[in-house]
Amino acid sequence: MIKRFPGLTPTRSRVVVYDDLVLTVAVAPDPVSPSMYEQSKKALARIDESLALSGTDKGKILSAIVYITDMSRKSEMNRAWDEWVDTANPPMRACIGVDLEPPHIVEIVVTAVK
Amino acid sequence: MIKRFPGLTPTRSRVVVYDDLVLTVAVAPDPVSPSMYEQSKKALARIDESLALSGTDKGKILSAIVYITDMSRKSEMNRAWDEWVDTANPPMRACIGVDLEPPHIVEIVVTAVK
Amino acid sequence: MIKRFPGLTPTRSRVVVYDDLVLTVAVAPDPVSPSMYEQSKKALARIDESLALSGTDKGKILSAIVYITDMSRKSEMNRAWDEWVDTANPPMRACIGVDLEPPHIVEIVVTAVK
Repeated sequence: MIKRFPGLTPTRSRVVVYDDLVLTVAVAPDPVSPSMYEQSKKALARIDESLALSGTDKGKILSAIVYITDMSRKSEMNRAWDEWVDTANPPMRACIGVDLEPPHIVEIVVTAVK
Repeated sequence: MIKRFPGLTPTRSRVVVYDDLVLTVAVAPDPVSPSMYEQSKKALARIDESLALSGTDKGKILSAIVYITDMSRKSEMNRAWDEWVDTANPPMRACIGVDLEPPHIVEIVVTAVK
Repeated sequence: MIKRFPGLTPTRSRVVVYDDLVLTVAVAPDPVSPSMYEQSKKALARIDESLALSGTDKGKILSAIVYITDMSRKSEMNRAWDEWVDTANPPMRACIGVDLEPPHIVEIVVTAVK
């Protein structure tokens, strides 16, 4: 069975759960700070909320793809990640430099399980 | 059991199915329009074909990553997406600005189930 | 049950295995060549190692996302891919042009099964 949690628009879901698989995406919610550290911290907090909605938590993340718009500021995202991550259960992670829709400078896609 | 559907080259598959999990990728097929809206519409139609090959459909998509080469034209992709999506079953979606091999300006990776 | 294999830092895993699902990411290990062909070849060899750690191999890859920093050199990556891939079991693959942290010019994310 597939369970979907509504996103900001009716044409996308914030979280999709299939059996024990949980797929979610997050950006920093409004108001959006221009700081890479702050946006990363807030996007990760959204991930926490989405995982809680699905009945799971960051200790059960399998993988994360972190998209950032400025690779020269990767260390700021890393600081937020390292403060947030469950070090007993670290996900596979890739960090990729891309364009995002302003004012967003970080977007995170997570695969987790329940 | 893994089932693979051939792509344009022998070193890649168009769709890979494992149990009830379906992974597929699409770009707009030839001839390739320079319009973001047209390419998005045709890439989404290819996704429909690939899901049909696998015995499923867009109502069972879990997530989509939409790669576009020009974030300033995201609204054109969104128009194609909004016309196409099953609004009763919206996927998780991320839209990411990247480079693609010309003439492609949109490429879509989908995770679905049967 | 989730099994995690350590990466270069304590806040990320090299491979994460959940039941029969295997998620892994690789870049070329040190020393890092400036050649797209060499980096691709070495990143793919790391994928082989990671799959072996997990008790599987490249014949059971479902999908691969190949991130490269210069789309004009995609053919070099393709050469490494075509030499490496199990042509009896080709994965779904997308190749995306992005920024990566220097000196890396290729990074590969793989979903496989055991």
